[in-house]
Amino acid sequence: MSKFIRVNMTTKEVTISAVPDKYQGIAGRALTSNFIADEVPATCHPLGKNNKIIFAPGFLTGTNAANSGRISVGSKSPLTGTIKESNSGGTFSQKMAKMGIKAIAIEGMPADDKFYVLKITIDGLTIEEAPADIMGIGNYKAIELLNAKYGSHVGMALVGPAGEHRLPTANISFKDPESNIRSAGRGGLGAVLGSKKIKALIIEDTNAPGVAIQDPDKFKAAAKVFAKALISHPVSGQALPAYGTDVLVNILNEAGGLPTKNFTAGRADWHEAISGETMNANIKERGGDGKVSHGCHAGCIIHCSQWYPDKKGKYITSGFEYETVWALGADACIKDLDEIAYIDREMDDIGVDSIDVSVAIAVAMAGGLLPLGDGKAALDAVKQIAVPTPLGRILGGGAEIVGKLCGSFRVPTVKGQAIPAYDPRAVKGVGLTYATTPMGADHTAGYSVATNILKVGGFVDPLKKEGQIELSRNLQIATAAVDSTGCCLFIAFAVLDIPEAFEALIDMINAQYGLALTGDDVTALGKSILKVERAFNQAAGIGSAHDRLPEFFEYEPLPPHNTTWDFTPEEIDEVFNF
Amino acid sequence: MSKFIRVNMTTKEVTISAVPDKYQGIAGRALTSNFIADEVPATCHPLGKNNKIIFAPGFLTGTNAANSGRISVGSKSPLTGTIKESNSGGTFSQKMAKMGIKAIAIEGMPADDKFYVLKITIDGLTIEEAPADIMGIGNYKAIELLNAKYGSHVGMALVGPAGEHRLPTANISFKDPESNIRSAGRGGLGAVLGSKKIKALIIEDTNAPGVAIQDPDKFKAAAKVFAKALISHPVSGQALPAYGTDVLVNILNEAGGLPTKNFTAGRADWHEAISGETMNANIKERGGDGKVSHGCHAGCIIHCSQWYPDKKGKYITSGFEYETVWALGADACIKDLDEIAYIDREMDDIGVDSIDVSVAIAVAMAGGLLPLGDGKAALDAVKQIAVPTPLGRILGGGAEIVGKLCGSFRVPTVKGQAIPAYDPRAVKGVGLTYATTPMGADHTAGYSVATNILKVGGFVDPLKKEGQIELSRNLQIATAAVDSTGCCLFIAFAVLDIPEAFEALIDMINAQYGLALTGDDVTALGKSILKVERAFNQAAGIGSAHDRLPEFFEYEPLPPHNTTWDFTPEEIDEVFNF
Repeated sequence: MSKFIRVNMTTKEVTISAVPDKYQGIAGRALTSNFIADEVPATCHPLGKNNKIIFAPGFLTGTNAANSGRISVGSKSPLTGTIKESNSGGTFSQKMAKMGIKAIAIEGMPADDKFYVLKITIDGLTIEEAPADIMGIGNYKAIELLNAKYGSHVGMALVGPAGEHRLPTANISFKDPESNIRSAGRGGLGAVLGSKKIKALIIEDTNAPGVAIQDPDKFKAAAKVFAKALISHPVSGQALPAYGTDVLVNILNEAGGLPTKNFTAGRADWHEAISGETMNANIKERGGDGKVSHGCHAGCIIHCSQWYPDKKGKYITSGFEYETVWALGADACIKDLDEIAYIDREMDDIGVDSIDVSVAIAVAMAGGLLPLGDGKAALDAVKQIAVPTPLGRILGGGAEIVGKLCGSFRVPTVKGQAIPAYDPRAVKGVGLTYATTPMGADHTAGYSVATNILKVGGFVDPLKKEGQIELSRNLQIATAAVDSTGCCLFIAFAVLDIPEAFEALIDMINAQYGLALTGDDVTALGKSILKVERAFNQAAGIGSAHDRLPEFFEYEPLPPHNTTWDFTPEEIDEVFNF
Repeated sequence: MSKFIRVNMTTKEVTISAVPDKYQGIAGRALTSNFIADEVPATCHPLGKNNKIIFAPGFLTGTNAANSGRISVGSKSPLTGTIKESNSGGTFSQKMAKMGIKAIAIEGMPADDKFYVLKITIDGLTIEEAPADIMGIGNYKAIELLNAKYGSHVGMALVGPAGEHRLPTANISFKDPESNIRSAGRGGLGAVLGSKKIKALIIEDTNAPGVAIQDPDKFKAAAKVFAKALISHPVSGQALPAYGTDVLVNILNEAGGLPTKNFTAGRADWHEAISGETMNANIKERGGDGKVSHGCHAGCIIHCSQWYPDKKGKYITSGFEYETVWALGADACIKDLDEIAYIDREMDDIGVDSIDVSVAIAVAMAGGLLPLGDGKAALDAVKQIAVPTPLGRILGGGAEIVGKLCGSFRVPTVKGQAIPAYDPRAVKGVGLTYATTPMGADHTAGYSVATNILKVGGFVDPLKKEGQIELSRNLQIATAAVDSTGCCLFIAFAVLDIPEAFEALIDMINAQYGLALTGDDVTALGKSILKVERAFNQAAGIGSAHDRLPEFFEYEPLPPHNTTWDFTPEEIDEVFNF
């Protein structure tokens, strides 16, 4: 990848240059985090002209390495105030990579009130006024209209009404291969794009040269081993394709770590109603548009996504994830999977992080702002985010703000971002990740659930403190590296359990770039990314004192195990002692 | 003062003990800040059971030293996350002091949902269930009902509906001598009281022994010099009694430092309509309940307060301050003083900080959430805080949250608290105070306006950087000490300009306690308070990176002088280098 594109939205100037030397050897999260740390003043306002936002494919994106089509988006987050990398599937990243575009970095902001579309082709990048008919409408319809205008073959990143209004949970939506929606969900990066008055980026890869491979034979061999490992692992080869990520409802419920009724219990009596098994049965039974498994980008062989249809078989939503189902189903006590599906669709359509808004709904219910467990009331409230009404703005503000406006101290957030679907009192390794990742509470930043619950990469007792610090640290380091490859995080199950998978991953990168990286190099890369991110946060005023879970986890035991969060500050600070 | 009262709202236990040694020699803000720093975990949730709230009179409170009746309230703030001291007039503090009560410290929180009244008499403190008829209603009516129940002679601290709902801007209201309302306004301490389920504190000083004076003759002589100085100074002796604090509208407008239309200009064409001169003329012309000048506590000889009546002469509001009039009149462009008065009354009645909510209204208007300059819409929205509706909750969240929910980067706050009525680009000394005080943006923490604009204590050019660091530092140190005396901050004009006034202040303390303090001791006290507060904040994760003004002040020049905020981070950090 040889081109580095800069777009200045103040001057409307576009610069396409060679990749700066310091970004030559990095990609994905490594590139986005270094770029933001290099160029964005840590104390700037996330929605002001001094913030920047950058899109970058990973090392392997655009090749036929399995599951390598993710896009990393980096910026200073309006939700957390931290540096942020949020990644997504869809078709955008592979097209960028095949066109030789290492990154698209956007800076400045227009003085006028118009919204724009950035169109990227092999000839360059043009800034066009956004067509009036795509403004203020849902993402599904906007994608349809943009397909009609630009051709359905183009890749697309866009913001919905939430991003136009720069709400703190606004996400960036990416078109998937069937013109449905994937999201760089967390941290409000859609609000940053909205602040720069960008409604959409359109990418057309006609005449793209494709990705060069230095040693095609070696690459091909490694890619085969890699793909085989993914398929052979029980999580990525069996559980995820069959039940999607929602397979975790029953698993976490059994483990007593399924946060229920705003984190007051670790099990939900009604877990079966919202489980992956029920989702699977509904899809099979209803037929029609339903698909049990589906990939979010070309080359995905795990297919954890699905198309979830209504009772008549009509498509409601896809990428219907465990974390969303958990938040609405267990945490907000909405016991009907169809009601949850409609809310999920609405969140995708409006363009908000379905984790933060769903946790916000649970906090709002606990705080008396919405009726507990009422899916219809929740759906109506979510729809209001698009207007936005005052209630819509509150929910679009995310769980932290909802908690403040409900006068609550039981607000499950870290650094302003909602804690997802694994209770830190019963899955202690992931609790350390929530507390310490530079991203704000984020399970994907160091998914200790794998080892605590799924027994992938060994086993560390989820209820005890022993071994968790090292586990969270090592997974955060590995994840930062994986997030730089362009690979889906779900390759990690195989990489952790099957030595050949890890070797194949490194072999593919070496074969593509003509390098001789070792496992140590990968670890060093992961560490360097985390250090850069953490230094940015510290300069932004977010340091160790913010690496803490909400206090109520320390003194409210979680049924059924009745464990509390019992790491000392000193122990927590050990996670980043490397 | 010999008694230290602790109330544990978890166990409903009341402990009355001798004053702990370490708190013997301190009072007011020195006591509240040291107590909070000693006993509250810096990273605790402000609305959780581990926060505490403490009420303390100052050194001189309860004596006949002029203007010495203020009460300090300390806690960890739900609005800013910092340590907080907020002080107020009213009758509560003098009754505490005369009863020999050094402090009332409240900790824990009830498990049930009932609200309580704490009743303090010479015999002790009892915890009673709050009468149902005072819940959910405005402060004016609640005071009337509590007067009927407990006698109109009692002192009173209470929270309005905003405090019951624990909204971030909820204040604590104190009954004044005529049963109207004074407020410990800033930082949301009413939400802390609400979280502890305390609706009101009632204090009855029947049989109070009064305050002992070690050397009555010396005290009397010093008190006389002190009072004479206050009366002889043009600000406290003439401007404030005649026009109230609202005298500052025309002064700041002339100086080009009156933030207008959400801090986009330094002058408002319509300044006369909202000026102290107009306020004074209206009161005189309308007669009836109107009073041009009025004291908020017994022994006040400045009388900056007033009763502002409607066109028929009926009381609307009192303590109608410049900062509120500015925020609604200039910043939110509501050009009618009567409309502003009704909103001010409503904010007092609901129990919210009139600065933060009024600045929030201006930010909401700039963000399209309310119509610009529309006083009726603003009044209607403020009334909704009492319900609270979603819009009411948003406004009750304060300017910072309104800014987030409007997707704005032009949000005039520091550490989450709204910047008040002096633009930091045109009154640079107070800008340094906003940035660095441990309280979050607060003009009273180091009122450089005195020297920058009023030429009290010398003159430092408001538009230049020279001399401002030392000015803000010295005023913050002096203010921390003054806030410990129980004296109104408006004694500072005389203290800064008239050497005898400062000597008399120290002489009174020495005469009362049998001490031999010097000016250096006072400075040392001020410094020690600031250091304790700053250390608490740093442990809470709020450090130098948070000692910054919003970025837009750096690149948006303020008409008419077209100056920007141009202190470097290193220069700002010099303020606390002592």
